[in-house]
Amino acid sequence: MTLDPSRLAPMANAIRALSMDAVQAANSGHPGMPMGMADVATVLFSQFLKFDPAAPKWPDRDRFVLSAGHGSMLIYSLLHLTGYAAPTMDDIRNFRQLGSPCAGHPENFELPGVECTTGPLGQGLAMAVGMALAERHLNAQFGDSLVDHKTWVVAGDGCLMEGINHEAIGLAGHLKLDRLKVLWDDNRITIDGDTDLSTSEDIAARFKSAGWHVTSCDGHDFADIARALAEAEAADKPSLVACRTVIGKGAPNKQGGHNVHGAPLGADEIAAAREYLGWTAAPFEVPAEILADWRSLGAKGAATRAAWEARLVADAQGAEFMRRMAGELPADKGAARDYMASLVAEPPKVATRKSSEMALEALTAAIPELVGGSADLTGSNLTKTKSTDPLTPANYGGRYVYFGIREFGMAAAMNGMALHGGVIPYGGTFLVFSDYCRNAIRLSAIQHARVVYVMTHDSLGVGEDGPTHQPIEHVMSLRAIPNLLVFRPADAIETAEAWALALKESARPSVLALTRQNLPPLRADAEMKSARGAYRLKPADAARKVVLVATGSEVSLAMDVAAALEGKGIGADVVSMPCAELFDEQDTAYRADLLPAGTLKVSIEAGVTLGWQKYVGDGLTIGIDTFGASGPADQLFKHFGFSVEAIVPKIEARLAA
Amino acid sequence: MTLDPSRLAPMANAIRALSMDAVQAANSGHPGMPMGMADVATVLFSQFLKFDPAAPKWPDRDRFVLSAGHGSMLIYSLLHLTGYAAPTMDDIRNFRQLGSPCAGHPENFELPGVECTTGPLGQGLAMAVGMALAERHLNAQFGDSLVDHKTWVVAGDGCLMEGINHEAIGLAGHLKLDRLKVLWDDNRITIDGDTDLSTSEDIAARFKSAGWHVTSCDGHDFADIARALAEAEAADKPSLVACRTVIGKGAPNKQGGHNVHGAPLGADEIAAAREYLGWTAAPFEVPAEILADWRSLGAKGAATRAAWEARLVADAQGAEFMRRMAGELPADKGAARDYMASLVAEPPKVATRKSSEMALEALTAAIPELVGGSADLTGSNLTKTKSTDPLTPANYGGRYVYFGIREFGMAAAMNGMALHGGVIPYGGTFLVFSDYCRNAIRLSAIQHARVVYVMTHDSLGVGEDGPTHQPIEHVMSLRAIPNLLVFRPADAIETAEAWALALKESARPSVLALTRQNLPPLRADAEMKSARGAYRLKPADAARKVVLVATGSEVSLAMDVAAALEGKGIGADVVSMPCAELFDEQDTAYRADLLPAGTLKVSIEAGVTLGWQKYVGDGLTIGIDTFGASGPADQLFKHFGFSVEAIVPKIEARLAA
Repeated sequence: MTLDPSRLAPMANAIRALSMDAVQAANSGHPGMPMGMADVATVLFSQFLKFDPAAPKWPDRDRFVLSAGHGSMLIYSLLHLTGYAAPTMDDIRNFRQLGSPCAGHPENFELPGVECTTGPLGQGLAMAVGMALAERHLNAQFGDSLVDHKTWVVAGDGCLMEGINHEAIGLAGHLKLDRLKVLWDDNRITIDGDTDLSTSEDIAARFKSAGWHVTSCDGHDFADIARALAEAEAADKPSLVACRTVIGKGAPNKQGGHNVHGAPLGADEIAAAREYLGWTAAPFEVPAEILADWRSLGAKGAATRAAWEARLVADAQGAEFMRRMAGELPADKGAARDYMASLVAEPPKVATRKSSEMALEALTAAIPELVGGSADLTGSNLTKTKSTDPLTPANYGGRYVYFGIREFGMAAAMNGMALHGGVIPYGGTFLVFSDYCRNAIRLSAIQHARVVYVMTHDSLGVGEDGPTHQPIEHVMSLRAIPNLLVFRPADAIETAEAWALALKESARPSVLALTRQNLPPLRADAEMKSARGAYRLKPADAARKVVLVATGSEVSLAMDVAAALEGKGIGADVVSMPCAELFDEQDTAYRADLLPAGTLKVSIEAGVTLGWQKYVGDGLTIGIDTFGASGPADQLFKHFGFSVEAIVPKIEARLAA
Repeated sequence: MTLDPSRLAPMANAIRALSMDAVQAANSGHPGMPMGMADVATVLFSQFLKFDPAAPKWPDRDRFVLSAGHGSMLIYSLLHLTGYAAPTMDDIRNFRQLGSPCAGHPENFELPGVECTTGPLGQGLAMAVGMALAERHLNAQFGDSLVDHKTWVVAGDGCLMEGINHEAIGLAGHLKLDRLKVLWDDNRITIDGDTDLSTSEDIAARFKSAGWHVTSCDGHDFADIARALAEAEAADKPSLVACRTVIGKGAPNKQGGHNVHGAPLGADEIAAAREYLGWTAAPFEVPAEILADWRSLGAKGAATRAAWEARLVADAQGAEFMRRMAGELPADKGAARDYMASLVAEPPKVATRKSSEMALEALTAAIPELVGGSADLTGSNLTKTKSTDPLTPANYGGRYVYFGIREFGMAAAMNGMALHGGVIPYGGTFLVFSDYCRNAIRLSAIQHARVVYVMTHDSLGVGEDGPTHQPIEHVMSLRAIPNLLVFRPADAIETAEAWALALKESARPSVLALTRQNLPPLRADAEMKSARGAYRLKPADAARKVVLVATGSEVSLAMDVAAALEGKGIGADVVSMPCAELFDEQDTAYRADLLPAGTLKVSIEAGVTLGWQKYVGDGLTIGIDTFGASGPADQLFKHFGFSVEAIVPKIEARLAA
């Protein structure tokens, strides 16, 4: 379609009508953004976006990210109007109702046309950075013929005001991700009122300072929008288009004010809007001619996709590309097996962050889609391997990202990389700073994204850096997040198992909580015992009275405690529990066998005790329920009661009680 | 002292010597920053900073915030050299040892001269924004005579790269906090290597875009430093001084490289540094003449303080000012009592976010030091009251801060406000976005800061906004943070109690988890039952077999469940537990009486079940261990099993087992 305002305006009004009617029907939702950005979105989808509604997961499609996720009716309207199989008009009628894929915020697991789950402000744009990064990386590996697409983002003032925005655009600017194009809904309204209530920033200048191309347009002038988008498309940098819009455009009495942001317009205003827009169709009806214009857009994409598929078939790397995009690991597991065999042959005494590095050496050599990084703690997290060259603008084919001191931006970018497909991202920081990226970890879990978080310095073992750097509540807090595996391995073999299990999970993220300090080897077998989440490391010698359950660095302490108890004739099992979530998934018999009734169960973990009652019932919980302190690690463990001398008497007292 | 380089250089070298020797002795720490910033710090303390070592808590002192907290030897050196009672040289000798106040990172609870705990990057500067805000606010209320000081910050590249930096400087620029002066240690080195590994930002341009004054200096040229600091001091905006420094300056072979950042220099390099610097004194010795120059600096501050104290005595508002700075609440509690009486007389059926607003109306009218705000959710969090006018550059005396979409920045600023003293900050966002500011909440707890977090929309009750906006794991995850009170009140009376208890805690932060949806009143007494954390709301009628323990919106459900059980002849207590932490502090008898052995204990909370085993043992935990969904709230509660129909059969089954 050529740029014909007389046809584009009704197309945009279809978005407006669907949005206001759906929000009204739900009596809940956000009409302001979809109505304000309808014109921009119409130009984007008509003239610029590469997509094929018949193939939502076509690998070389452009990615469209609605970072301002509360304006979800914009994307639902677009997907329906352009002819995606979902959402149907019935789905839209049921906007925000239980069971409708048209959820309050766009959810990637509800609709194939939704690239990522958005709503938590700022993260959509930050995920888009990861998508644009994955695109350049795969382009470097597979060439323009297979990988040549853009990532388009619609972002609001909230996305730009959030701290993560600074991290995201800094990373994108530094890496010169020129396929990233951000359309900023510059409506000068936030929930509390005019943006000047809380901000005075020169946003264009800020983006320029981060190495971005910046332009602007009248967001209600189709020609000007097209001019700006073309300029952005041509820029050799990531690009910000400030689209000056009127929030709620089309609602004649409410547009331009903050009351149109997040509440239904009401029947009267909807009637007024229909008149104002000249929209005569009934709610949830789109006149055939307008719908036809929308549906015609897919044809261009279908042809482009067909050409791409022909190239794919002819490409020598086509099969490998599709394997990676499908998220299937290489069939050959030899490297992992060899590495495990080397551990079994000679179990090393190393920190689990070190054994993570050793595992990664083998894994990154064998799995080319593993792309790693760290938030400026490479030498501490031990995340870089010989196989992973730095990923830079001069070498997008590199596999190691210096994410900078940007934990939240890193985590969100990893989500975007995983959702883009073709890469499996992992990234490191100190466990205590999981706080900084916690909501992105949560979004990994919500989105079923295979992201591996390498969180080192996982306890008091941090030592001298003191309470701000010693995770106390973090392991348990992460266990509280649904659909997330939290591994806390006890030695090199469990660490190798954790890596293998994390990578096998195609629809769940994992956190690896790893020590700074060396740990003695506890096993010398390749039986993948961590797969059951917990297992009996040592059965009682004397008659079993006690079951010690421990994780990570405290498993060897539990072994020492058990030895001391056995020395007193008290039989004690030691259960290592590297992953509580996997243990919870075992059958009742297995769980009851490991944690049998009639024994005193004792948890030992250098973190909060809250939560351990789930496994030890009214047994003992050995942990730390205060903040830590600054001092050498071995002294701290003793100081806070993690010693045989401190624990054994507590157990004896309970047995005697 | 006049600006005499021949005397300033040895003073700066004293910092360098103490820093490298202390790190060496500890075999742990960060020499690079203190050595690099020694010259800048010497000029700051000699010529600009208003301080009196004899009175570390003098209210009108300048605040000095070492945002780059890993360089803690800088502040320990400065405090000791200028003559603060602590740290002593022995404390410095024991740098990073268990029991020394010279912890790995500066801790406000260890040394009176440390204004705030820093180390988690970016948060020192963001707390400084809160301090500068509190200063302007108190200045507006008490005048130049009592309040007229600056906040000086030393920040590193990490502080500037973190996302929170964007939020902090945006807020400071918007509020024109011209008493905030940031000295950026521009050494172009991060842990991973040169800053250009991960960033290409034009930092000066970014700060200018946020409304800041920016200048720069050679960080090793005393005259140039003094020129830049004077320029910054005179600026009518918040100011950034880019101090171009050499990291580890003085270590001739290691300076300027990233290996000097966070590891001891080693004996050889320390010897070389001594020679390079012409420093002949033994470790932990400072030549008398140099020490005398340092100690002389305090005299100026002592005179300034004496003059200030004379003004304080003469000031009609002096006593009120000192009451606020001491953190003592007004003696007259009449307003709170009257409000509680009105609730008892006519208990309302409202959302707890609404009853929080009602409580705040009374409290903000009675407690002038309460300063509120919200991260752009004022109308949702219901945090603004009639007594609290907007705090703006035109009206710093206002008491309501439009923090903008800056959750982390808001929380850190509140920490700074609380630590500055004279104000008690509270601020709102959605509970799910406690994730965004989680590490600042943790820092509230570490720092013993009285900050009240008003976290609304606390469960599935969020409804249509769906899983990204529905807290599932958040209440329990917050309970895992030490030294933090988490209140989840069940009705208007419990909400009023929660507010009273939160404000009474002078050394602990509190989170109030509040509902979006209306809740029925459950009590009509003013007995402050929440003070014990949990209490028996309803005793069993029939013989007690069941104890239902619930919080917040699920307490009324528990009452309904109990009624249904009693209808079947099953006696059931209902225990409301608005604050688990306060309950944990009760004596054994009280706790055992509420949760007696021999009963089936059942927790009901619309969040993860992990953790509830602590209270119900092997009883039942009714909760939600998956993410939520988008739909009307009442349907969601039913869908996820929060109904009498779903719960009663589970209890009966367990009783029958």
